[in-house]
Amino acid sequence: MEAGDIVAMKEWSKNSLLGIEDLSSDEILFLLDEAETIKAQKTTDGSIIESLRGKRIINLFMEPSTRTRVAFEIAAKSLGADVISIAGEASSLTKGETLKDTAMNVQALGADAIVLRHSSPGSPLFLSQIVNVPIINAGDGAHEHPSQALLDIYTMREKLGNLKGKRITILGDIRFSRVARSNLWGLLKLGAVVTLAGPSTLVPKEFEKLGARVTHDPNEALRGADAVMLLRIQHERQQASHFPSLSEYANVFGLGRSTFDQMKKNAIILHPGPLNRGVEIESELADSNRAVILQQVSNGIAVRMAILQLCINCGENQR
Amino acid sequence: MEAGDIVAMKEWSKNSLLGIEDLSSDEILFLLDEAETIKAQKTTDGSIIESLRGKRIINLFMEPSTRTRVAFEIAAKSLGADVISIAGEASSLTKGETLKDTAMNVQALGADAIVLRHSSPGSPLFLSQIVNVPIINAGDGAHEHPSQALLDIYTMREKLGNLKGKRITILGDIRFSRVARSNLWGLLKLGAVVTLAGPSTLVPKEFEKLGARVTHDPNEALRGADAVMLLRIQHERQQASHFPSLSEYANVFGLGRSTFDQMKKNAIILHPGPLNRGVEIESELADSNRAVILQQVSNGIAVRMAILQLCINCGENQR
Amino acid sequence: MEAGDIVAMKEWSKNSLLGIEDLSSDEILFLLDEAETIKAQKTTDGSIIESLRGKRIINLFMEPSTRTRVAFEIAAKSLGADVISIAGEASSLTKGETLKDTAMNVQALGADAIVLRHSSPGSPLFLSQIVNVPIINAGDGAHEHPSQALLDIYTMREKLGNLKGKRITILGDIRFSRVARSNLWGLLKLGAVVTLAGPSTLVPKEFEKLGARVTHDPNEALRGADAVMLLRIQHERQQASHFPSLSEYANVFGLGRSTFDQMKKNAIILHPGPLNRGVEIESELADSNRAVILQQVSNGIAVRMAILQLCINCGENQR
Repeated sequence: MEAGDIVAMKEWSKNSLLGIEDLSSDEILFLLDEAETIKAQKTTDGSIIESLRGKRIINLFMEPSTRTRVAFEIAAKSLGADVISIAGEASSLTKGETLKDTAMNVQALGADAIVLRHSSPGSPLFLSQIVNVPIINAGDGAHEHPSQALLDIYTMREKLGNLKGKRITILGDIRFSRVARSNLWGLLKLGAVVTLAGPSTLVPKEFEKLGARVTHDPNEALRGADAVMLLRIQHERQQASHFPSLSEYANVFGLGRSTFDQMKKNAIILHPGPLNRGVEIESELADSNRAVILQQVSNGIAVRMAILQLCINCGENQR
Repeated sequence: MEAGDIVAMKEWSKNSLLGIEDLSSDEILFLLDEAETIKAQKTTDGSIIESLRGKRIINLFMEPSTRTRVAFEIAAKSLGADVISIAGEASSLTKGETLKDTAMNVQALGADAIVLRHSSPGSPLFLSQIVNVPIINAGDGAHEHPSQALLDIYTMREKLGNLKGKRITILGDIRFSRVARSNLWGLLKLGAVVTLAGPSTLVPKEFEKLGARVTHDPNEALRGADAVMLLRIQHERQQASHFPSLSEYANVFGLGRSTFDQMKKNAIILHPGPLNRGVEIESELADSNRAVILQQVSNGIAVRMAILQLCINCGENQR
Repeated sequence: MEAGDIVAMKEWSKNSLLGIEDLSSDEILFLLDEAETIKAQKTTDGSIIESLRGKRIINLFMEPSTRTRVAFEIAAKSLGADVISIAGEASSLTKGETLKDTAMNVQALGADAIVLRHSSPGSPLFLSQIVNVPIINAGDGAHEHPSQALLDIYTMREKLGNLKGKRITILGDIRFSRVARSNLWGLLKLGAVVTLAGPSTLVPKEFEKLGARVTHDPNEALRGADAVMLLRIQHERQQASHFPSLSEYANVFGLGRSTFDQMKKNAIILHPGPLNRGVEIESELADSNRAVILQQVSNGIAVRMAILQLCINCGENQR
């Protein structure tokens, strides 16, 4: 733990992780510390941690996802748990069944936790009010993606130390990004100064109400920043585009050596992946030692192990 | 075990479960008792039963299915077995290979049991004559779905006691239902009085030859019944419909409070899921304590554990 | 080990298996011997070998495949390893990400080995130069399919003994076949005499440069041969056909009793599956005791266990 982080909390008391907005700064730090302990254990020891042996975790992914699903699967197996992945479009999975009934069924199958990816904002909260087993939000529409934000924040804290007063810029497609939203809440709670930047069509001024600085000038956004988090520009959605072309975006908002040099000397670059080289970032910069993109992926396992372990153990005590 | 069930059988002697039609009443009761023992063990103890540790179970699902496949996967893992799921349309799996060759290949991969879902009635029987490993029928066309019927019957016995003389009504799309067929055979063998009901297009009079009462009047079907099993009306197939519209079906055959009140005082409601609320049943009734739909799902794990354990152990002894 | 095989090698020193072309004959024999030890252990003992317990193997299948993926999954689990299968079309998996970035991500997830199926020839070699974890080639375009060739060669050695001077005929769609290519390299290294045969459109004369005899006359190809390996004629691709029709192919090149009788008395028949009965081979002959097609499948598990064990243990020592 960095000096300056004072965690008064003695015990984790949430059995679901629905979002970052409803966590206290103490809860965030407690979770990060738990992940740090797990990571250290894995590194020094290499032994298998089986704190969830005999538990059954059901990945209920009602929107396609490979990366997040696989990361949760690895995290769960690393703790000795069994994982069942139910993945597909909501429609084919449920055949007209309500989400409530699907969740009740998954609970009846004996799940000890449900990791939920769903296109509807608020669906994890809704389910957590219905079933007794922990619900872990693995992305709900454009609302939150808390495990991603926690691994991002973990990585920033690992590289930059205490985040109080640190200047973090999130650059790209903010408007529809659950990653941006979850990070914004988490970073502000930990005392960071957050700037949201990108084309005006993708970064609405309304976000200032949440406590962020909003700018459409990349230089202004990056000058003196400690970290920049690049968000993926979605090739796939480009027809309904909010900017003229990908190369136009790359020219103005793509991170290159010259804009990067305006940041602090030890500034770091984050990206949730998959990376569009030459769009969000110059290829060479992505391969430089300032990019911590692969560390984010590795840290994601420890962070998700912490989430599963804390929530399931807490759920057990409450029942 | 309920008083009145006299099981003369000392040992399970089938290494495949192909259907309910070829089980004796003693075999059905033996299997239900085994499931009861497993369920009790799980509840009181919570420890991991690893009677199939080191065994390899291959789920060969040549027709799409999520629920049954996942339930078998959980049952197998709960016994410590490894599970490999091979799922997809028959055509893409086999690329023109015969079903016999596919099964021989799966056996050569070292399977200790094959759980088979296939669109062709009789395919599990056919395969059981070719390979040495146990074949568990997880649904073959419109023929049988024995694990579903066994979990239904388990749940009815759990709630109603000995099924001899009990009046059970199966209501809905009987014609093409392997669930109805397997339940009919099982219930009759245990001495229940079975009524099949629904629109005349979906409930042919020929079923009387199998020993059931057939009626197209829902009130007549439900009056004095101990249990009703609702069958799913398939939204998906509605174009080639056997009744004017879903709402028409709901009006006449949907289970509502008033029709339910004609049943016995402690009558129960079963449904194999997924549920179409407002079609087969009024939503409120589905949530009442008379509906045992989620208990069916839970019991399905114990019942499938019993099936796998008995068949694989028996297969071992025979080889 | 057969008399005449002299393996000077004491230890395995490759942490990736990229193809057969870059293996020495000693390396091939070492690997076959390891598989033989594993198979013997499984047969006599039946106990679970957990030499890779705690290891995490990621199947990265960027081209559809059920058989090879499942075989690697079973091999990995048989050694106690965890397996995560990432399967799908490259495009949906990577969303525009480079193959290099995908591999770096998989490594960052904590993979101890990556089993790769990819449509691009050379992609396993390319990745092995980028990541530190072992890369196992599970088929790269029309280039190599080393685990298939090794199980084929294993099976031939098991049935025929030392392959030096043995006459092996590969018959069918050679042109685009990675199986043919890998087998050709492996068999020649072990001293076998290899004939490639099939329609002239599918068996180009250029293959003579690699050391094989090429003929378009099936009788000439089979006369006096010790083994014939039939390659699958791809129904699916028949529109862009290289021969008039399937039945025409079957008439001329399909293996029947009369052509088979020209082979040596104890000759064997191999096929990588799935089998088109009546096309590549008469159905009766496929079921005869000269066909070792199912032994190939079984041996594939032991061979892949040997591959995973040798490469991962070697990779560990090198890091």
